[in-house]
Amino acid sequence: MIKTGLIGLGYWGPNLARVLAQAQKSDFTAVCDLDPARLQRLARQYPGVKTFADVNRFLDCGVDAVFIATPIGTHHDLARRALLAGKHVFVEKPLADTSARAAELTEIASSLSRTLMAGHTFVYSPPVVKIKELIDSGALGDVHYLSFSRVNLGLYSKDVDVVWDLAVHDVSILLYWLGEMPECAQSFGRCCVQRAKRDVANLWFQFPSGRVAWCEVSWLSPQKMRRTCIVGSERMVVYDDTEPSEKVRVYDKGVSLRRPENFGEFQLSYRMGDMVAPHLSNAEPLLIEVDHFLDCIEAGKQPRTGGRFGEDVVRAIEMATDIGWKPGCSLEDIFDRNVKPELAGEAA
Amino acid sequence: MIKTGLIGLGYWGPNLARVLAQAQKSDFTAVCDLDPARLQRLARQYPGVKTFADVNRFLDCGVDAVFIATPIGTHHDLARRALLAGKHVFVEKPLADTSARAAELTEIASSLSRTLMAGHTFVYSPPVVKIKELIDSGALGDVHYLSFSRVNLGLYSKDVDVVWDLAVHDVSILLYWLGEMPECAQSFGRCCVQRAKRDVANLWFQFPSGRVAWCEVSWLSPQKMRRTCIVGSERMVVYDDTEPSEKVRVYDKGVSLRRPENFGEFQLSYRMGDMVAPHLSNAEPLLIEVDHFLDCIEAGKQPRTGGRFGEDVVRAIEMATDIGWKPGCSLEDIFDRNVKPELAGEAA
Amino acid sequence: MIKTGLIGLGYWGPNLARVLAQAQKSDFTAVCDLDPARLQRLARQYPGVKTFADVNRFLDCGVDAVFIATPIGTHHDLARRALLAGKHVFVEKPLADTSARAAELTEIASSLSRTLMAGHTFVYSPPVVKIKELIDSGALGDVHYLSFSRVNLGLYSKDVDVVWDLAVHDVSILLYWLGEMPECAQSFGRCCVQRAKRDVANLWFQFPSGRVAWCEVSWLSPQKMRRTCIVGSERMVVYDDTEPSEKVRVYDKGVSLRRPENFGEFQLSYRMGDMVAPHLSNAEPLLIEVDHFLDCIEAGKQPRTGGRFGEDVVRAIEMATDIGWKPGCSLEDIFDRNVKPELAGEAA
Amino acid sequence: MIKTGLIGLGYWGPNLARVLAQAQKSDFTAVCDLDPARLQRLARQYPGVKTFADVNRFLDCGVDAVFIATPIGTHHDLARRALLAGKHVFVEKPLADTSARAAELTEIASSLSRTLMAGHTFVYSPPVVKIKELIDSGALGDVHYLSFSRVNLGLYSKDVDVVWDLAVHDVSILLYWLGEMPECAQSFGRCCVQRAKRDVANLWFQFPSGRVAWCEVSWLSPQKMRRTCIVGSERMVVYDDTEPSEKVRVYDKGVSLRRPENFGEFQLSYRMGDMVAPHLSNAEPLLIEVDHFLDCIEAGKQPRTGGRFGEDVVRAIEMATDIGWKPGCSLEDIFDRNVKPELAGEAA
Repeated sequence: MIKTGLIGLGYWGPNLARVLAQAQKSDFTAVCDLDPARLQRLARQYPGVKTFADVNRFLDCGVDAVFIATPIGTHHDLARRALLAGKHVFVEKPLADTSARAAELTEIASSLSRTLMAGHTFVYSPPVVKIKELIDSGALGDVHYLSFSRVNLGLYSKDVDVVWDLAVHDVSILLYWLGEMPECAQSFGRCCVQRAKRDVANLWFQFPSGRVAWCEVSWLSPQKMRRTCIVGSERMVVYDDTEPSEKVRVYDKGVSLRRPENFGEFQLSYRMGDMVAPHLSNAEPLLIEVDHFLDCIEAGKQPRTGGRFGEDVVRAIEMATDIGWKPGCSLEDIFDRNVKPELAGEAA
Repeated sequence: MIKTGLIGLGYWGPNLARVLAQAQKSDFTAVCDLDPARLQRLARQYPGVKTFADVNRFLDCGVDAVFIATPIGTHHDLARRALLAGKHVFVEKPLADTSARAAELTEIASSLSRTLMAGHTFVYSPPVVKIKELIDSGALGDVHYLSFSRVNLGLYSKDVDVVWDLAVHDVSILLYWLGEMPECAQSFGRCCVQRAKRDVANLWFQFPSGRVAWCEVSWLSPQKMRRTCIVGSERMVVYDDTEPSEKVRVYDKGVSLRRPENFGEFQLSYRMGDMVAPHLSNAEPLLIEVDHFLDCIEAGKQPRTGGRFGEDVVRAIEMATDIGWKPGCSLEDIFDRNVKPELAGEAA
Repeated sequence: MIKTGLIGLGYWGPNLARVLAQAQKSDFTAVCDLDPARLQRLARQYPGVKTFADVNRFLDCGVDAVFIATPIGTHHDLARRALLAGKHVFVEKPLADTSARAAELTEIASSLSRTLMAGHTFVYSPPVVKIKELIDSGALGDVHYLSFSRVNLGLYSKDVDVVWDLAVHDVSILLYWLGEMPECAQSFGRCCVQRAKRDVANLWFQFPSGRVAWCEVSWLSPQKMRRTCIVGSERMVVYDDTEPSEKVRVYDKGVSLRRPENFGEFQLSYRMGDMVAPHLSNAEPLLIEVDHFLDCIEAGKQPRTGGRFGEDVVRAIEMATDIGWKPGCSLEDIFDRNVKPELAGEAA
Repeated sequence: MIKTGLIGLGYWGPNLARVLAQAQKSDFTAVCDLDPARLQRLARQYPGVKTFADVNRFLDCGVDAVFIATPIGTHHDLARRALLAGKHVFVEKPLADTSARAAELTEIASSLSRTLMAGHTFVYSPPVVKIKELIDSGALGDVHYLSFSRVNLGLYSKDVDVVWDLAVHDVSILLYWLGEMPECAQSFGRCCVQRAKRDVANLWFQFPSGRVAWCEVSWLSPQKMRRTCIVGSERMVVYDDTEPSEKVRVYDKGVSLRRPENFGEFQLSYRMGDMVAPHLSNAEPLLIEVDHFLDCIEAGKQPRTGGRFGEDVVRAIEMATDIGWKPGCSLEDIFDRNVKPELAGEAA
C-alpha cells in the first residue's frame, strides 16, 4: 500500500479523491486545500483522511505519493516542492504552464529517482488504447491524417484559454498514438465572449513522418462533439466519445492508386469492406491511470505519461500557439486586435 | 422563352440538361460536346435538341444563353467566346481557374451588357437561404465564427484538388452569408493518395469585421459529413445537409459576460432555450438557380452569384492556397516535399 | 422537517437514500434492511442515520414518513404495516402486486388520513411533464395514438417479468397523460432466456375516448431505446429519453381530410411546419418526486401518483396480462365502432 | 431475350418500365394503361415500345412475360387473363386481395407451366438477403423474436389500408427469413384520418417453432423509421433501412442461463462482443428481382417469391386482420406451452 495524498479539491479533485479511496494499492491518507468548507465536506465522506490547509504540513504528514489537482499556474511550484520533499508526484494535465518548467520537473524527478506523471487521462481510456493497438499493429496501414473535434457549450476554464483547457487532451492522444513530435504547428482562433481568452480555436500539426493532424476546440458550440477521425491507407477509424457504446468504428475502406497495366493513366481504386466496432471495456480511465501510477512507483518504471511525455504535450501546444503569419497580415496583429488586455472604456 | 444551350455532358452536364428541359422560361435548343456517344444519348432523351461537336457552330445556332459545364481549365476560354458571341453565360463553379481570368470575364460581360453567372448552386438551396435570412435579420446576433466540414470517401476530381473541388462550395456559402471578403486566409493539407493533388485540407479565413471561419474538406474520410456550424452571440445554428429533414437547427443558446453589480469579477452567464428546426422547402436548388439566371436575363438584373461574386470566390481560394508559414518551417517547404510533380523513381 | 426512513437498500434504495439526505424538508433518520453489510455501508455514508434489521423496531423509532424500496412481493405487507403504524408511505413502483392489494392500501391510507404515494418517477420528469402540458393545452389536438419502445440488453429483474419491470413505467406515463383508464388491453410476448418469465413483450391498450396505445418492452435487445411517439391531429411529438438533450421534439405536422368544394373525393391534405425542441429543466426527477411527496404530507394533499393512481397502473397491467378478451369488450366491437363504412353525413 | 410487357403506369409502373428497359434478358416491347397521357409520356421515353389502352390487344401483341403494376383489386383478374393467354406473369405485391384468389393464380400457373411471381422487392434487397444468410448459417443461433417498425408521414394508399400497403413488406421479409407460416396472428390499430381505413396498426405473429414477431406500421408518424430487430440466442441484428450505409449491424451480444455448478440458483450470463456492419452491395433490388424472374422463366425454375410464397403472404395478413383468435389456437395455449412453471428436469 502506498500512502497517497491530494492537493486541490476544486472541480476535478473530488474525482481523484474517490479513486484514491478506491484504488487497491492506495492508502488514501491526506488532503490539502485552502478552503475549510471543502476540507470539511471531504472529511465527512472519507472519515479516515487527514486534512491540511498548509502545504508544508501536508508534505510532512507521511504520504508517499502526492496528487496535484490545482490551477495550472501552481502546478510547477507545488510539484517541485513535493518532489524535493521526496514524494512521487502525479500532476493533473498539463504538467506545467511552460515546457521549460515541465522540463525542470522532469529533471528533478529523474535526479531524485522519484516517479513523476502527468494526468493525461484519455491516454488510459479503452478507446484510445484500442486505437493505439490498431496503429501499432499496422492494421490501419500508413496513417495519412488525423482530425479532432472537441466542442461543446460552456465549462469555461477560469485560468486558461480553450487551447490549454481542451486541446491538451487531443494533443496528448495524438502524441501517444504517433510517438513523434510535430516539426511545426500553428493555431488560429478567436476570443468571442471574453477578452484575452480564446474560446474557440483550430490547431494544425505537421509531423516529420509526413503525417498531419488538426484539431478544432470550442467552448461555444451548440452541439457537443468528441469526434476523432484517423485515416490510414488500409483502414479508417472514427472515435466518437459521445456514443454510449460503439465509441470506436473501424472501416475497412480505402482509396489507392493502381499502376496501369501497360501505358495510360494511373487509376484510383476504391475498397469498401465491413465496419467493425470492437467491444471495449468500460473500466474507468481515471482508475486505470491511478493504478498505473502506483504500479510504476512500485516497479520503479517510467509511466506512459511520465514527465517527458507531459513536457512534450506542453511543447506541442507552445509550438502551435506561438504563432506567425504571412507578411502584411500576421496572426499577432489579429490577436493583438482581438485579445486586448482590457477595453479602454473599462480601464478608465 | 429564352433559347438555352449547354456545353459539356460529363458528370454534371446531364443534370443541367434535365433542368433546362424543365425550367419554364427555358427553350432547351442545343448541346455541345466532343464525345459523339454522349450527344447521341442526350438526343434520344430530348428529341428536339440540336447536337454539336464544334463550339463555333454551336454558338452560331441561335441560342441566347449558354450553360458551361466543362472542366475548370476550359471555363475562361469557353465563357469568353460565348460572351463575345453575344450570349448570356452561366458557368459551373468555379467561374475560372484564376481570379484574373474571372475578372476578365466579368468585365467583358459588363461592357457587352450580358448576364454572367457562376453556378454556385448551394447559394440557392433553401437551407443556405434560410440561414442568410437569420443572419441578416439579426436573429443570430453578432456572428462569432463559422465552422464547415465537407468530407466523404471518394469522388476524386480529375482536374483539380480537393480545395478547388469541395471548398469552393463552402467559400461561396461563406461569402454569401457574410457579404465581405476575408482579409487574410491560409490552408494546410496533404496529398495522401495522389502526388501533387491534395485530397484533404483545412482552410482558415479572417474577415475585416473580426469574424473567423474554417473549413475541413476531404475526399478520404470514412463517414460523409456536410456539417456547418454558425455561432452567433444570440443564437447558434447547425446546418447538416446529410439529414433527410431538419437540415437547419437553430439553438437559442449562448454565453455572455455579465458586468458585476459592484466590484468583483465579470461573470459568465449561460442562456439555454428552445431549439427550432424551421420547415424548409424541398424545391431543387439547381432549378431555382437556373430560374434565377433566366429571370436576371429578362430583367437585366445582376445575379446573386454574378461575375463579381464568382471572382470573389476564386480570389478567396487563392488567398488561402497561396500560402506562407513561419521562418524555418514554411508551408512551401512542406508542400514542396509532399507535392512533388513525379517521384524520382517513376521519372526514371 | 419530516423525519424520513427507508426500507430496502438493494438496487434502488441507495438512490432514495441520497435524495432523502438531500431533500430540504427531509430529516433522514433511519433505514431498515436484512443485510448487515448494506446497513454498515449506508451508516458510513450517512453517519447520523439509525440502522435497523427489524421492521417493527424501525417503525417504532419515530419516523413520520416511510419509503419502501423492496421486492414487489413485499410492498403490500410492508406498506400496510407502516400505514397502520401511522406513517405516511411512499412505495416504489408498482404500488402492489395486485390491484386488489393496491386498493386495500389506498383505503387504509384514506381511512387513517395518511399520505400514500406510488414511486412512478417518470411522471415527475421534465420531458413527461412538458408533454402533459402540451396535451392538456390542446397543442397536439386530438391524440390519435401513442407508441412506446423501452428496450435494452440486460438488467433482468429477479422477481418479476419484463412487463411488471419495464412496462409499468410506460403505463404510468400513459395514464398520467391521458387521464383515463383503458377499456380493454392485451399483451403478447415470449420467455426467451428464462422459463416462466417473459423478457420481451408487447402491450395494446384501447381507451374509451377511442385513443389507442402500444408498448414494446424488452430486456433482450442490442440497442437501447427509450422512445415514445405521441401523434395528435395538430402536432406530433417524439420523446427520446436516450438523447442527452432535445429529449422532446414537437413536430408541427399533420394529415387531414379536406371536404371537397363541390362533389368529388375527399382529399388528404398534408401540413409540414417547424420542429421545436423545447428547453427542459435538468432537475432530477427523483428529487422532484420526493419533494412532492413531502409537500403533499405537509399540505394534506393527494399526490399526483397517489394510491388511486398506483392502483390504476397495476389494474391496467393486469388487464393487459390477463390473457384473453374481457366479456363485453371485444376488439370486434371496437373496430365496428371505429371503422364505420361511411359517415351518416356522407352517406346522406 | 424475353419479350416483356407492362400493365399499369401509375405510381410504381414507371420504375418497372425503367428496369425492363435496362435488364439484359428483357426486350421491353409493350405497355398497357387506360390513361393516354401516361402512354404518350412513356412512348417518348422508350420510343420502341408499343402502347395499348386495351388489355386484350396488349396480350395479343406477342409479349412472353407480363408485369402487372395496377391497383390491388385488379391483380387477380389481370394476372388470370395473362396466364390463360400463355404469358409468364409478374404481379406487384400483394399477389391478390385474398389468399383464395392468390391460390387460384398459383394453380393456373402450375397447370399451364407458366412462371408466376409476386413482386416482393425487399426479399431481393442486399440487406434482407444478408440477414437470411446469417439466420440460415446459424450465426444468430435460435431466433427468439423479430420486431419491425415501418412508419412515416404520408404516402396514403388510395385503395388499401396501411396493413395491406406497408405490413405486406414486413410479412414477406418475415416469411422469407423464417421459412414457416404463423400458426396464429392478430392485429390492432386505428383509423385516425380516414374512416374505414386504418392508417396505423400493430400485428403479432406466433410461429409453430415458438418464434414470435411483431410489426408496427403507420402513415401518421413524424419521423421515418424502417427498423427491424432480429434477436437470436447467439447474435442480434438491427437492420435500419434509413441508414445511408451500414444498414445491417450484427451484434455479438447475448444473455444465457448458466446452470449452477452444484446447487443454487441459475445465473444469467451476459456476453458483449464486437459489432460488425457487413459491407453490402448497392445493386438495385428491383433490377435483381426482375433479373431473377427472367432467369426463372428461362430455366423453368420456381421463383423465390413465386405464386405459393405470394399466397402465404396474403394468408398471413388475413390471419392477422381477421380479428379474433382462430379456434384451436388460443394465446392461452401458446403461453401455457412457452411459460411452463419449471422444467421437468429441474423439478425432478
